[in-house]
Amino acid sequence: MNTTLITGRKPLLEALEQGKTIEKIYVLHGTRGPVIDSIFRLAKNRGIPIRQTPKDRFQSITKGHEAQGVAGVIGQVVYLEIEDLIERTLPMTDAVLLILDEIEDPHNLGALLRSALSFGVVGVIIPKHHAATVNQTVIKTSAGAALSIPITRIANIAQTVIALQENGFTVVGLDAEAPDSLAEIPDTGRIALVIGNEGKGIRRLVKQKCDTLVRIPMSGTFESLNASVAGAIVMYDVMRRRSKDSAG
Amino acid sequence: MNTTLITGRKPLLEALEQGKTIEKIYVLHGTRGPVIDSIFRLAKNRGIPIRQTPKDRFQSITKGHEAQGVAGVIGQVVYLEIEDLIERTLPMTDAVLLILDEIEDPHNLGALLRSALSFGVVGVIIPKHHAATVNQTVIKTSAGAALSIPITRIANIAQTVIALQENGFTVVGLDAEAPDSLAEIPDTGRIALVIGNEGKGIRRLVKQKCDTLVRIPMSGTFESLNASVAGAIVMYDVMRRRSKDSAG
Repeated sequence: MNTTLITGRKPLLEALEQGKTIEKIYVLHGTRGPVIDSIFRLAKNRGIPIRQTPKDRFQSITKGHEAQGVAGVIGQVVYLEIEDLIERTLPMTDAVLLILDEIEDPHNLGALLRSALSFGVVGVIIPKHHAATVNQTVIKTSAGAALSIPITRIANIAQTVIALQENGFTVVGLDAEAPDSLAEIPDTGRIALVIGNEGKGIRRLVKQKCDTLVRIPMSGTFESLNASVAGAIVMYDVMRRRSKDSAG
Repeated sequence: MNTTLITGRKPLLEALEQGKTIEKIYVLHGTRGPVIDSIFRLAKNRGIPIRQTPKDRFQSITKGHEAQGVAGVIGQVVYLEIEDLIERTLPMTDAVLLILDEIEDPHNLGALLRSALSFGVVGVIIPKHHAATVNQTVIKTSAGAALSIPITRIANIAQTVIALQENGFTVVGLDAEAPDSLAEIPDTGRIALVIGNEGKGIRRLVKQKCDTLVRIPMSGTFESLNASVAGAIVMYDVMRRRSKDSAG
């Protein structure tokens, strides 16, 4: 089984302080110190089992990585096949999906997954190639969200856009040069939001397949947002308008 | 004005290779050579404007220093005293300021400065201590916004909040536990938005001084946003409602 580890005293303590889901903690037999004490206290409070581990076993768990005598086993990334993700959304008339077209920076990917989970996005689609993969940095930046939100890795975004459209999704691309603003995103119904690469935006072929392209209205003299910020604003705005609708 | 120049072919090439923030490059008309070609290529890749400059103008820029035909203007952070920042906002009936209460991560600080400039925030207030300072990482993450937006560094945020209130600012703190949502932020008038530390949020003493505390409504099961994402959403939402007002 492919488990994910957080190794190192400070990273593990931080993960605990941030409330991350940690299944158990391996401690190399005899490891001591103030940070270890804090880890033990937090783990005890949260009911996380601590396994005192002999050196051989510890090294085989940490695969020789520098671990400072501690390793926490964290939850696993939930990868879904695209068919399963679509199937899962079938009963949801207002499902929102997020498609990330070649986001390269793991910090951006992590932040986008975190925002997606916070704003009720039901699944995130990322490409298999030319994009950040869900690694330790991504999990950490996502504050654990990467372990909770369904993620689908696909080879071809343009084909997936078509498959989503065939399943009733309106596909909306975020494009700084689009004439329309966020207000054009449908207030109801199934939608998939496409966020492009940090530098290049959405690829031309993907853009052509989108039903609508929208931009974030800005008021400054300098119009440029970080990709994870732009994505979060779109998700917030969609959620805001949809919850207003359901309320009134 | 206090601009800083890098003159000379090798020094300028090295500065570009090191990823230093260079606002523009002056080239003495007709200057050629392999190092100049490399400078041009790097500058083009990074979107740095190149100004072909006649001899008189070039010499007045370089003040007679030996420049080998090239001079790069290094970006400078614009620091304002708090009194000057407030004075600058006096004619602006709808000025929006941003107060960052101990943002620690340079990437978050950079992203917040970038979003602030994009959404028309007129100045950013940061603490002198216990917070990220505006270094190269911040400038880079801000995509240069750190060099354009006025920044004020102060010793005491709580006192500054009072000074802003005395000058007609409504001070709004972002707090995940606030009962009110963003919709409670005044649609008109002068406001200062307070974003707290990544882990701890706004400090208690600062929070007590705020006129209103608001939260970002979220729909997910997991409610947690990155500080730079949260800040951007508040700025976006304020800008959105204010520009709608001015339009209708």
